[in-house]
Amino acid sequence: MTLETPPTVATAAALAELLALAEGREFSRLRALLAEMHPSDIADLVASVPSAEQRLEILRILPDDIASETLAEMEEDEDRAELFTALDSRRGLALLQELADDDAADLLGELEPGDRDRILAALPTEEAGEIRDLLRYGDETAGGLMTTALVSVSDGASAGQAIAEIRKQGREVEDFYTVFVVDERDRLQGTVPLDDLIRADPEDPVESLVEPAIATVYPDTDQEEVGRVMGRYNLVSVPVVNEEGSLLGRITFDDVIDVIEAETTEDILKLAGVSDEEELKAGWLESVRARLPWLVLNLATAGVAASVILQFENVIQEVTFLAFLMPVIAALGGNTGTQALAVTIRRIAVGDGLFAGQFRVVGKEVLVGLLNGFVLGVIFALFAFLREGDPRIGVIVLLAMWANIIVAGFAGAMVPTVLNRLGVDPAVASSVFVHTLTDLVGFVMVLSLAAALLF
Amino acid sequence: MTLETPPTVATAAALAELLALAEGREFSRLRALLAEMHPSDIADLVASVPSAEQRLEILRILPDDIASETLAEMEEDEDRAELFTALDSRRGLALLQELADDDAADLLGELEPGDRDRILAALPTEEAGEIRDLLRYGDETAGGLMTTALVSVSDGASAGQAIAEIRKQGREVEDFYTVFVVDERDRLQGTVPLDDLIRADPEDPVESLVEPAIATVYPDTDQEEVGRVMGRYNLVSVPVVNEEGSLLGRITFDDVIDVIEAETTEDILKLAGVSDEEELKAGWLESVRARLPWLVLNLATAGVAASVILQFENVIQEVTFLAFLMPVIAALGGNTGTQALAVTIRRIAVGDGLFAGQFRVVGKEVLVGLLNGFVLGVIFALFAFLREGDPRIGVIVLLAMWANIIVAGFAGAMVPTVLNRLGVDPAVASSVFVHTLTDLVGFVMVLSLAAALLF
Repeated sequence: MTLETPPTVATAAALAELLALAEGREFSRLRALLAEMHPSDIADLVASVPSAEQRLEILRILPDDIASETLAEMEEDEDRAELFTALDSRRGLALLQELADDDAADLLGELEPGDRDRILAALPTEEAGEIRDLLRYGDETAGGLMTTALVSVSDGASAGQAIAEIRKQGREVEDFYTVFVVDERDRLQGTVPLDDLIRADPEDPVESLVEPAIATVYPDTDQEEVGRVMGRYNLVSVPVVNEEGSLLGRITFDDVIDVIEAETTEDILKLAGVSDEEELKAGWLESVRARLPWLVLNLATAGVAASVILQFENVIQEVTFLAFLMPVIAALGGNTGTQALAVTIRRIAVGDGLFAGQFRVVGKEVLVGLLNGFVLGVIFALFAFLREGDPRIGVIVLLAMWANIIVAGFAGAMVPTVLNRLGVDPAVASSVFVHTLTDLVGFVMVLSLAAALLF
Repeated sequence: MTLETPPTVATAAALAELLALAEGREFSRLRALLAEMHPSDIADLVASVPSAEQRLEILRILPDDIASETLAEMEEDEDRAELFTALDSRRGLALLQELADDDAADLLGELEPGDRDRILAALPTEEAGEIRDLLRYGDETAGGLMTTALVSVSDGASAGQAIAEIRKQGREVEDFYTVFVVDERDRLQGTVPLDDLIRADPEDPVESLVEPAIATVYPDTDQEEVGRVMGRYNLVSVPVVNEEGSLLGRITFDDVIDVIEAETTEDILKLAGVSDEEELKAGWLESVRARLPWLVLNLATAGVAASVILQFENVIQEVTFLAFLMPVIAALGGNTGTQALAVTIRRIAVGDGLFAGQFRVVGKEVLVGLLNGFVLGVIFALFAFLREGDPRIGVIVLLAMWANIIVAGFAGAMVPTVLNRLGVDPAVASSVFVHTLTDLVGFVMVLSLAAALLF
């Protein structure tokens, strides 16, 4: 393996080889290779090393700036808090001071309260104060995402003065992208895109270049909303202001990409009945805790739906073929409901169109169900008729399938739309509702039609 | 409604009011309100106006720069091609020339070939050539996402010369964020972050500030991979190079946010058995076409799985209670399989850790199934025993449920992992596999245990 040029994208094979070096304790060779890697890739490597002692060894051989970025790129569920507290305390403090304040706050937020307080006490007062401020905000809010490191200029300055100011502030602030303009009381007046500032005449007043901020968020704005706003308006960064309009911090696009990924994961898992407390890398006992309650609920609802079968035992005894028909018709209803659910929930989540989530999608799903249900009904009815030789069986199958598919389309679109209107997350509860309904309709239709037509 | 300050985020209520104005043909009042709105919000408004003639009217009253951005922010499935061709041809050309080349190419790509050629012939030669180049790339590739508008400086220049050059090029290029550095043959040498350049001494050679590009992509790189790379390395823009290393264009973070959203939608829909040809705003006939084939396939697989029931009709005739047990045990297997599938597919999609998608997740899912299956089995077995008064029924339920939940966890993790290893998209085919298997295991276990224990 040669890594003479920085890998544009690390391959799994390359990382596997590094892992082998770590396990073989060939640290000097490892150090040379790590020097050319991106901290995101090193974080992956560290997270994949099973032995805590070897993880620590890798972090030890990295220079401070890379080691701190590696910690920032690791995830909470990769035990980075454990790794951090295992470092000797001087090194830990040095790494923490290399980090941006939002990353430092995220890391400290994962520590035990005792460890956290000890470290905060050891940091310089100003830095500790900034981190304490950030720690007050909820994890999944704008305040929890923002950094206070930003570049701002006064609305009274000239373009030339502003550039000088940016040179000065910019030494401390990485990737600032946008220059914020504030008045003498620190209230946000707008932004000056850096490119406009460079293109401007140095004598131009900043005031003449200010563009109103396209969007601002409050510290307690939900992170999902922050992601939606930045995606919608194509913003590289968004200012966070308090109720007086004073500039508190900013959130950049890279945080938002992480948020969109996390929120999507949450939506997919919720739709599949996995509690959002389960992390993708959770251990098996955590997974049991996250999933079992939903399965027990499902056992109850599936049991209740199927209990109608118990009311018709004499019908089944006469026509055991019904025991074959029912699960198939219920399954197709479930599948149709899942399709309608997924399309509707995704429409709502993308929020594409503030007009999304309207009731007219329900009408569309009913139409789709009308046609799909008829086709599926005819196919299955023909099969049932040919096998049993009784046209009444065909009629039962056609009607039961058709009705169940229409109900599935209706419920799959209606339930999440109504939940969304009520302010309830539609991904979380829709699926169990819809599937109970399609089970129930499938069973009741088959059995009651059979009782009416066959006896 | 007052819109005296630009709305930070448009509300559905505000847009509904605008819609009412459009429908009432109060265009002068509408024009005043639109002047303060973001093109993303105007695009929503236009897409929500049902009458084609009114849509056109709204586009007519907008100034060119806003009208063109509005077109750029509309989606293909919102009939923007139709809207564009309905404009008079001089206005159409004017709007097209306002657009960035990638947006212009996207729009032209949606037109009928005849219309497209006519418009390309009417554009200035250079602009038409750039757009033609972009049109050659596939929609879902880096080439299809990139813009050729970028700011680059020669590696021989000084920081001061570079800033002068950027001032000049920057007039033409919006939101350039990063300055690319190329050699005399246009080969990419790396980037100079704009903030570093401003902070640098004007005499410093650009060469001393060049940072190697963290990642580059080729024009035919899949857009999903582009999104992964930019998210992984927190890149605000990524250069697109050809095989000789020459700089062709760049892709910015806002395109990538759109890609991540689109790819996620695709994954959720595929997992739910909706073909990726269905757009979220598809008409009902398109939806039928996109979903019916999968439902027919499901009818076949559900039918095959349930056909084992036909082999045991005499067992069911004796113990009709089994007709109640089977769908419940099959449903719980299906739910467990969906949970394991969602977690595994999401792990693979996030690609978090190049070590993701490994077989060790299969072991974890089996453990989870072992415990969840036991709990569910005991609950349902107790219920069945208490109702039927026969301990053998309890044993049947316990064993059938337990086995099915373990199989579901195993298959839910194994199937997508294997498909991913084989280079097949795991979201597309996993679900039907797993559910057929859990149906089959549920039915076979209940019926064969009943046949063995009860007779």
